[in-house]
Amino acid sequence: MTELERLGEMARKAALSLEGCTCKEKALLAAADALEAHCAEILEENNRDVEAAKESGMSKSLLDRLRLTPERVSAMADGVRKVAALDDPVGEVKKMWKRPNGLMIGEKRVPIGVIAIIYEARPNVTADAAALCLKTSNSVILRGGKEAIHSNLAIMRVMQKAVYDAGVPEGSLNIVEDTSREVATALMRLNGYVDVLIPRGGKGLIKSVVENATVPVIETAAGNCHVYVEESADPDMAVNIVLNAKVSRPSVCNACETLLIDSGFAHKDMLIEALREKGVEIRACERTLKLFPGLKGACEEDWYTEYNDYIIAVKIVDGIDEAIVHINKYNTKHSEAIVTESYEKAQKFLNEVDAAAVYVNASTRFTDGFEFGFGAEIGISTQKIHARGPMGLEALTSVKYIVYGNGQIR
Amino acid sequence: MTELERLGEMARKAALSLEGCTCKEKALLAAADALEAHCAEILEENNRDVEAAKESGMSKSLLDRLRLTPERVSAMADGVRKVAALDDPVGEVKKMWKRPNGLMIGEKRVPIGVIAIIYEARPNVTADAAALCLKTSNSVILRGGKEAIHSNLAIMRVMQKAVYDAGVPEGSLNIVEDTSREVATALMRLNGYVDVLIPRGGKGLIKSVVENATVPVIETAAGNCHVYVEESADPDMAVNIVLNAKVSRPSVCNACETLLIDSGFAHKDMLIEALREKGVEIRACERTLKLFPGLKGACEEDWYTEYNDYIIAVKIVDGIDEAIVHINKYNTKHSEAIVTESYEKAQKFLNEVDAAAVYVNASTRFTDGFEFGFGAEIGISTQKIHARGPMGLEALTSVKYIVYGNGQIR
Repeated sequence: MTELERLGEMARKAALSLEGCTCKEKALLAAADALEAHCAEILEENNRDVEAAKESGMSKSLLDRLRLTPERVSAMADGVRKVAALDDPVGEVKKMWKRPNGLMIGEKRVPIGVIAIIYEARPNVTADAAALCLKTSNSVILRGGKEAIHSNLAIMRVMQKAVYDAGVPEGSLNIVEDTSREVATALMRLNGYVDVLIPRGGKGLIKSVVENATVPVIETAAGNCHVYVEESADPDMAVNIVLNAKVSRPSVCNACETLLIDSGFAHKDMLIEALREKGVEIRACERTLKLFPGLKGACEEDWYTEYNDYIIAVKIVDGIDEAIVHINKYNTKHSEAIVTESYEKAQKFLNEVDAAAVYVNASTRFTDGFEFGFGAEIGISTQKIHARGPMGLEALTSVKYIVYGNGQIR
Repeated sequence: MTELERLGEMARKAALSLEGCTCKEKALLAAADALEAHCAEILEENNRDVEAAKESGMSKSLLDRLRLTPERVSAMADGVRKVAALDDPVGEVKKMWKRPNGLMIGEKRVPIGVIAIIYEARPNVTADAAALCLKTSNSVILRGGKEAIHSNLAIMRVMQKAVYDAGVPEGSLNIVEDTSREVATALMRLNGYVDVLIPRGGKGLIKSVVENATVPVIETAAGNCHVYVEESADPDMAVNIVLNAKVSRPSVCNACETLLIDSGFAHKDMLIEALREKGVEIRACERTLKLFPGLKGACEEDWYTEYNDYIIAVKIVDGIDEAIVHINKYNTKHSEAIVTESYEKAQKFLNEVDAAAVYVNASTRFTDGFEFGFGAEIGISTQKIHARGPMGLEALTSVKYIVYGNGQIR
């Protein structure tokens, strides 16, 4: 039995008794307190990661994501407290019905079992993911990146002790100490132990998971999002939404990457000007170039690109049909918005665009578990099975049919 | 572009306009009529398969599953009519809520998109799967086994013509003509075209899909199911349920494979006698052997085995905890039953047994989309994400968040 299988066995065993455990909220609050109480120890371990990262020449922005401070540790603890305070979806019988033979069948929300999460540099994911899984009575096997390994292990150690002392079954929280690629791949193939794997990270990680995993996966996060300004759009609203979707936080997956402007929209100059003023580089289609000759031209590749930066592709389209065809061809099925005053066009866009979240007259930036009111987010699913869009606690659950009979046979 | 990618492209394109297509029910009824009208042609093609199968020495029971008759073609057509008559879950907005910023967010049921189904010998799956996918506005790519290829192609040809003539977008129904293993593997890896793959078949197929697929998969069907006769059980009810679960149809996945008898249950002889009378071979644990010395002994492997035959493993356990531990260790998380008169034990079993369907005082044989009242079944999921247990039409759908704003930015 490998070390990973040993973790898997522990996790599976713990998962079987986690649903019946009634001290989870108390345990999460204890874990939050412990994170703050052991702040110095966590910062010390984090410093080892930061020093190693500096030596290896990590970029400033990545270093900033890696670095913990007393404030960030407190924020982490507060995040755990917020998860503890959420309503637990597990145990709810969503519906129950009676069959003609008298059988009563109920559909009960249950934990998934063992959830594996492979993630990258940010150490706060460790506390966040552990809390979300424990809250929903799932065991978790975390595998963070090597850049944050000392921070992740310290956070996990503190949380483990706190929750086990509070009565949570040992084996509920697990972290893989070996950060090699081989062990990550082995985790993706740990069938029989892992019920679902959620990767949280960049394209390279997602691609590796899709190619290698044999356990069920929930694919997350790539976002090539569009805003389509339809001809009837209110010009000021259009400018506000486009700017917000592009520049409020360009690095995130719900930011806008391509702007589609209807050829009939009379205020194209307002949109282009506003983007330029904010320092956004524009990659323009040929029709846009004719109207604004100073811009850089877009190539086919641009329509596929998630810039995650102050860059936007711009294309002029003739009507909503062309806009929808373009979006459905190039998008990653994440978030898409139309700005329009037309009832008919709004309905058509909502019906025909294929994406997790489709907006009328609002920014794509709202695709987020907190903004949707879920109180938490484990990631944003870009696949169509199990969960789509922002995943809250319910995405970490499954169902079980409970059937009450009195001797029925078939 | 390979032939498979060409199919994928057609399927994807059709999927985008299928949700808005309002002639699906009419088209399905036309397809059902066409199946009956072209019965002779279908039987002729089926005969080619049957002759080839005979030559290759196919077993009698498999030959029987392969062979079509006018009655079976009519039954197939009736199945399609029944699917046409079901309520369509697509389009339902399950809930809608208002956020503090005024955004209205609705969770709308939408088709999954393109569903691939890989299945084995029975040609009726072709009509059934095509109908279920079309009903839920999904495109389908079917890949049946080579044993039934002429039958499958004939059925598909007839259905395609009927539904396309009725106005369904071309490309909605697809079948892979090449039955090689290479093409099946390529279908499992057709990312970007296939939204979900559902395998319907034996262990070998499921294993191959789990190992090779890079598209999302819904795993189906292995069933190592248990009946636990608790000490307070009504003896007659226990006998009825055990017999029904074992012998009413031993070849199916919801049949019972292991009987657990509580050491305190006073009527063990009734159970053993009843099974013997029905010609069931018993593989007994050591304690059972002591009581019934004539039986064959069970080895460790027996507890894992899905016999799909007139064979049952029998184990005597000391109380419900031992029963639950045994079940959670050896089961395939399909269907599990307890026979008991104890309220406490019933609740404990329902809560602690990890399976898609857990029964009190009823046969495991009820795990079935029709018996559950879903009106259809595309398979029985044994994984925990997306769908669990019998999958009806809703399992063939996804969700999309539709968001109504009036200029909101974040």
